[in-house]
Amino acid sequence: MLWRRALRKSDATAVRVLVGETGFFSEEEQQVAVELVDETLLHGSASGYEFIFVDGPGDSGALLAYACFGPIPATLSSYDLYWIAVTPSQQGKGLGGQLLREVERSAHLSGATQMFLDTSGRQQYAPTRAFYVRSGYKVAATLQDFFAPGDDKVIFVKYLV
Amino acid sequence: MLWRRALRKSDATAVRVLVGETGFFSEEEQQVAVELVDETLLHGSASGYEFIFVDGPGDSGALLAYACFGPIPATLSSYDLYWIAVTPSQQGKGLGGQLLREVERSAHLSGATQMFLDTSGRQQYAPTRAFYVRSGYKVAATLQDFFAPGDDKVIFVKYLV
Repeated sequence: MLWRRALRKSDATAVRVLVGETGFFSEEEQQVAVELVDETLLHGSASGYEFIFVDGPGDSGALLAYACFGPIPATLSSYDLYWIAVTPSQQGKGLGGQLLREVERSAHLSGATQMFLDTSGRQQYAPTRAFYVRSGYKVAATLQDFFAPGDDKVIFVKYLV
Repeated sequence: MLWRRALRKSDATAVRVLVGETGFFSEEEQQVAVELVDETLLHGSASGYEFIFVDGPGDSGALLAYACFGPIPATLSSYDLYWIAVTPSQQGKGLGGQLLREVERSAHLSGATQMFLDTSGRQQYAPTRAFYVRSGYKVAATLQDFFAPGDDKVIFVKYLV
């Protein structure tokens, strides 16, 4: 596996495939994921988005996992984890946890004091929420019916030290 | 006073002046306010931002108040009030309340079931928070130290019926 920070043009398609195959994100959400890649390809670090990619072995290694994060505008040192996804064949092997720790380490080096992330309160996301709790995150807030009736937004936070 | 929905090119400057003179928004926040105007001038309703402007009397009437709101991406029917500002000389006369009701009415007609908005927990914003409470909003969540140490983000919500 190859870890890298620099974006490639092919990442727009690779990210679309990756977030699609997880089965966790709507068409609209997948478009947003690709837009963040496109915007960063266009504007570089001025976009405010940072990425970590994990490629499979070999020259044409498929994208196995990625995360997108960055400072929250108008805050002093709060960061947001916008995206984290691991391809289904690599799930359950600790790669997501490794990637999350790398995101936190990188953000902390850039001055982040806390990492926020949003997820859903739906039953389908129970393993996702458990993953964040295992990783040291706490529920900061629950916004009832935010996404739709019965689909709460759950905001997690972790203080980075 | 003239109420209007359509954006003019001059609104970018007018919004910058208005949000600046309120004294409530940082330089970075003022830039964001102008960016939302610019993006909507460029992309029209596809930007996802809607505006209501209140102009002063006369052909060269200055901008007295404005609001910017829109559907929150990836939600079924949640809206966000991104901006609302009233020029200092017109504050305390009920214009903000009128404008907020107009925003809610317009959003509800477009299918919104709830309006979210973010504000600060700082003492300076106590009158702002009281304004939202008087207008029927409830605190949905408080994110501690979100903006900076001692500066919480307070998320308000109102169900639109």
